[in-house]
Amino acid sequence: MANKKPTLKDIANVLNISTAAVSKAMQGNSRISDKTKQAVKKVAEELNYQPNHLASALRKGKSNLVGVIVPRTNSNFFSSVIENIEEVLNKKGYQIIITQSNESYKRECANIDTLLFTQVDGIIASMANETTDLSYFEKIKSKEIPLILFDRGENDLNVDYIGINDYDCSHLIIAHLVSQGKKRIGHIGGFSRSRIFNNRIRGYIDAIKKYNLPSDGELLLESSLTLEDGREKMLQLLALNNPPDAVYVAGDYAALGALQVLQENNIAIPDSMAIVGFGNEPFTGIVTPSLSTINQHSDKIGRLAAETFLALVEKTYLKQSLNKQILTAELIVRDSSRILT
Amino acid sequence: MANKKPTLKDIANVLNISTAAVSKAMQGNSRISDKTKQAVKKVAEELNYQPNHLASALRKGKSNLVGVIVPRTNSNFFSSVIENIEEVLNKKGYQIIITQSNESYKRECANIDTLLFTQVDGIIASMANETTDLSYFEKIKSKEIPLILFDRGENDLNVDYIGINDYDCSHLIIAHLVSQGKKRIGHIGGFSRSRIFNNRIRGYIDAIKKYNLPSDGELLLESSLTLEDGREKMLQLLALNNPPDAVYVAGDYAALGALQVLQENNIAIPDSMAIVGFGNEPFTGIVTPSLSTINQHSDKIGRLAAETFLALVEKTYLKQSLNKQILTAELIVRDSSRILT
Repeated sequence: MANKKPTLKDIANVLNISTAAVSKAMQGNSRISDKTKQAVKKVAEELNYQPNHLASALRKGKSNLVGVIVPRTNSNFFSSVIENIEEVLNKKGYQIIITQSNESYKRECANIDTLLFTQVDGIIASMANETTDLSYFEKIKSKEIPLILFDRGENDLNVDYIGINDYDCSHLIIAHLVSQGKKRIGHIGGFSRSRIFNNRIRGYIDAIKKYNLPSDGELLLESSLTLEDGREKMLQLLALNNPPDAVYVAGDYAALGALQVLQENNIAIPDSMAIVGFGNEPFTGIVTPSLSTINQHSDKIGRLAAETFLALVEKTYLKQSLNKQILTAELIVRDSSRILT
Repeated sequence: MANKKPTLKDIANVLNISTAAVSKAMQGNSRISDKTKQAVKKVAEELNYQPNHLASALRKGKSNLVGVIVPRTNSNFFSSVIENIEEVLNKKGYQIIITQSNESYKRECANIDTLLFTQVDGIIASMANETTDLSYFEKIKSKEIPLILFDRGENDLNVDYIGINDYDCSHLIIAHLVSQGKKRIGHIGGFSRSRIFNNRIRGYIDAIKKYNLPSDGELLLESSLTLEDGREKMLQLLALNNPPDAVYVAGDYAALGALQVLQENNIAIPDSMAIVGFGNEPFTGIVTPSLSTINQHSDKIGRLAAETFLALVEKTYLKQSLNKQILTAELIVRDSSRILT
């Protein structure tokens, strides 16, 4: 770098006093004369000296920064969680810095390194789709930095977690579709290696059994849940000899892709095919037909994650038991699955 | 904090050698015996010593972090810019950390402090709606940390800038609406204190004059451009004695609010009232009717912002002239403004 940052020593050299005296003058120490204090102030300004807050935070072991890792910021769920985390933590004097993994394990590892590098006081994270190796998250734990997971977490990590009752949500959705007269229900699910998507898949399978509906393997597809993959998986379901009359999609973007495919193929929604998404993204209320979906309570999740972090730092790790908070999500029924009789 | 982080001194104390020797051992210095090196390594592991990369970055004056400040992450434009910045910078060994201002000046100041605190090597930012006082951005400049603004910038700051030709976009939109037979065109604009929205407003006014259209003051409204405010401003326009037959809205969310109001009032779109938004948010293509809008080239903006940062650090501030890159945006005509004749 061309410009080396001025230090206390540079100020001391100009004034021909000790670095310690400059430091004391800056801290307003009463043993330093007002004249010296003013001289130090003047020289500091002239040199454009910037007190190094970070170095001071390093000494004190506290940065007042909290790192947040999300799979992507371009999702109303994640940005709403972030907003709510921020609201709670800002009030307590913490600033948050955000990193995104873009669903990549490699990037998530880099995110963790970055946040540890910036000496965050804690990390609140939701895991990437790709992540199966937990060693990077173990690294956070091993440093005794509070780690709170939300939405996409892993039981094996044994850390505090805020999420919703994914398994029950599947039951809610299947019960609703059955009540609308649907008899052959498919599921475009997330990757089963991810705990939350696995819970949704298990919930789907159990609910299908409960209602004695056909549970052909071809009706259950794993997906990355992007809009594009939602399109692809719906085309796959439509190509079946015996296609479903309703599909529960584990993410709103994929549900939107599925909806587009149905419209392009002139399939009546919801009469020939009903669709239910997951996440209550804002577009779900404005598309035609409007999309039934699950409200995940991103606001509560964000607030609880922030409060869990605060509880952890205030208790300085004396906590003995884990704090798993599972919120009850709600089904929002809209035109894509409401049969008018 | 309960657990003080172990230091080199702690390791030195255990082994009864000097801190300098521990440091040298860790750096693999040949003057330290292999036996000592192994002992240091073992004790470091036992104490869970973590080399402080940040302290080392502070000494070297380089963190390889780039800070990004956006008004909000919950916008496809901003998250796409971020994604593209990240893609370019990751390849060059930089990690990015994101902060959001939520359109608040106070938060933006806190964002800047946070990023300076984490010793970022540069800041890429788009300003909050509220910001008029530039002193916080001047602070970044005074520290000689590369600052690149995109989309929402200020000429007065004299920093590198990437944006689009907002003034010309207004001309494109008005020319299109005129070609569709519209004769009384309103504008729900952003706050005129913000440079980009001011350019859009000036473009609107000049284009209206060019086509000899009525330029009543009541047809031009300033807005925060949220969905809610878009609703409110459209209601205001509908309440006029002589309402417009087309409205150009300077943001897609506000355009969506306006669209909802028109539908709720059974006003035929685009025949009785045409709507054009701005930003090409993904929902604009999926609402009914689909919304005409401006594609701002978020991908290019992100890449150029990252490349400008790289050019700045590589030249280590020897750059003499400013780099203002103004991209040519394009109008996407959809159902909300296409009159079928």
